[in-house]
Amino acid sequence: MSDLNLSCPTPLARYPAVVMAHGGGGRLMRDLIEGVFVRAFGSPRDAALHDAASLDPAGTAPHGLAFTTDAYVVRPLFFPGGNIGELAIYGTANDLAMAGARPRWMSAAFVLEEGLSIATLLRVVEAMRKAASDVGVEVVTGDTKVVERGRCDGMYITTSGVGVLSHDLPIGPAAVCQGDAVLVSGDVGRHGIAVMAEREGFQFGTTIQSDCAPLCAPVLDLVTGGIEVHCLRDLTRGGLASALVEIAEAARVTVAFQDQSVPVDQAVRGACELLGFDPLHVANEGRFVAFVPEPQSELALSLLRRHPVSAGAVQIGTVRATGEGIVLAETIGGERPLDMLSGELLPRIC
Amino acid sequence: MSDLNLSCPTPLARYPAVVMAHGGGGRLMRDLIEGVFVRAFGSPRDAALHDAASLDPAGTAPHGLAFTTDAYVVRPLFFPGGNIGELAIYGTANDLAMAGARPRWMSAAFVLEEGLSIATLLRVVEAMRKAASDVGVEVVTGDTKVVERGRCDGMYITTSGVGVLSHDLPIGPAAVCQGDAVLVSGDVGRHGIAVMAEREGFQFGTTIQSDCAPLCAPVLDLVTGGIEVHCLRDLTRGGLASALVEIAEAARVTVAFQDQSVPVDQAVRGACELLGFDPLHVANEGRFVAFVPEPQSELALSLLRRHPVSAGAVQIGTVRATGEGIVLAETIGGERPLDMLSGELLPRIC
Repeated sequence: MSDLNLSCPTPLARYPAVVMAHGGGGRLMRDLIEGVFVRAFGSPRDAALHDAASLDPAGTAPHGLAFTTDAYVVRPLFFPGGNIGELAIYGTANDLAMAGARPRWMSAAFVLEEGLSIATLLRVVEAMRKAASDVGVEVVTGDTKVVERGRCDGMYITTSGVGVLSHDLPIGPAAVCQGDAVLVSGDVGRHGIAVMAEREGFQFGTTIQSDCAPLCAPVLDLVTGGIEVHCLRDLTRGGLASALVEIAEAARVTVAFQDQSVPVDQAVRGACELLGFDPLHVANEGRFVAFVPEPQSELALSLLRRHPVSAGAVQIGTVRATGEGIVLAETIGGERPLDMLSGELLPRIC
Repeated sequence: MSDLNLSCPTPLARYPAVVMAHGGGGRLMRDLIEGVFVRAFGSPRDAALHDAASLDPAGTAPHGLAFTTDAYVVRPLFFPGGNIGELAIYGTANDLAMAGARPRWMSAAFVLEEGLSIATLLRVVEAMRKAASDVGVEVVTGDTKVVERGRCDGMYITTSGVGVLSHDLPIGPAAVCQGDAVLVSGDVGRHGIAVMAEREGFQFGTTIQSDCAPLCAPVLDLVTGGIEVHCLRDLTRGGLASALVEIAEAARVTVAFQDQSVPVDQAVRGACELLGFDPLHVANEGRFVAFVPEPQSELALSLLRRHPVSAGAVQIGTVRATGEGIVLAETIGGERPLDMLSGELLPRIC
């Protein structure tokens, strides 16, 4: 790659400085990634904007290794149904799972704010230990830095994960085909609403719990259960909408789904109505979409439903046609194109 | 491992909250690591407090893989001789090199502060691209988060690295033997002084350049050149003193070195005298110690001196006796025991 032209690439040029939406999982974040990181380091290895890279050391494990990283900056550190430590383990494990890899090893790097209570740090690290044990992953290396009071927000954690691929499927948008069934693993929107309610002190009658959970077991069941998985994506920042739009655009296909068929918890729907949010755009931390051949849809759903974390799996749509990368939400009145937001509904949810 | 007792372990109990020295590479950081992280995740795999873990996937590359992570929070982002982007690539590559591994793949996770100029981000990422190219490493996966103004300091970068081991040497403190020669790869103290001078606006007549550089080439030359390397450690936070004390304590040996034989640049020595610093405690980012069998010392030095980054390599001491983990600095008047500091001379140098 030749030297970067250090002048600001369009459309980044419209934003001479970082804005919160640059971290939001939407258009602006993609502009930042493409305008800065892809220009420097090239496109992600395997597929358009995938969350893990595959490694291929000579004579490696049968199907190679997957490698991923995520920084966690959620605010507050603890929320109903989870905390930053669980997120840091499950989130990175889930990125490996989305490559069809079994998570094996993790690193954890902490940036700690001067004044953070050690008791809080211990609670978070204990949550990580339990989460790692759940997932069957070993935290094998780490690092700690401390910055002055006011230069962090309690703590930020970056975990990286290495997983072992157990298949030869080219999982990713490029494998998506016309006719594929689009499955979602459960109800959407709980994590974003749970974090926001805790942060802002909102009461919605009932306490909404984050869906924060590891997704490795159901995904590996699909892969080892004979499902010819075409694409997987966990529904984090930007929610279901961003995931579908990213996949549709990368695969150049029309994804059509029935708005009414997307499961949304009643309390989450109520909170979204109060706040003017669309649950399709709200972040999740324990949900994913899977694109599988239509004839295998029922088998895939039955495999997913064996696991509590994906007991609510349903088919929400299909891949209609190829050529144009769009997502259509079918409603009672007709259909509307769905887009990702430019930023995100609320920052720092993971 | 059983559940963590969430009460505060001694000696952490003396500090109910994080203090800057917890990130300083000295005693307090070790207390934090042992009291929090080792309690949760167990001891680092291979050797006492080593900076990289080895991975051992079934049927892997001939000698397995090494895995490491570091968070970079240096202030300011640019300093004479380097910047946070170079540090983030070279520092993590160096941790792999210290395991005798050839760096191959890296991840990069960014926490960006709202308001950071995109031009600054581009300069840093371009520096990373060049540094990665120098080291022969591919940045294959990444992540970006944005936090509100005042919740970061421009940017923090966490890189993780996977390298390929090309040897079967059990490199680490446990391999250190009585009679080993202790080599240092060049003059010490430049990085810490360069960063502090830039941060505080100090003038020392001449601009002191950081030694920030990749160490892979000379280290791999030692390993492939037939040197039976016993231990390697890069001299980052805590400087030469911390590295020697850590190794001596882990290996339970007496390390004796000649104070006068440690190379220190004249300008660095002058700055240290002005500031009351001991160059042995000042951080470096392109220096390491190597413990090798005494009979191979001259060959090892000649291999190191072929590389500009380690052209100033010298033997500074030997491993005298086993049993007690101490470091003795031999001076004209006698010898004094050397200890690591509780914190670090100045925080946020990497």
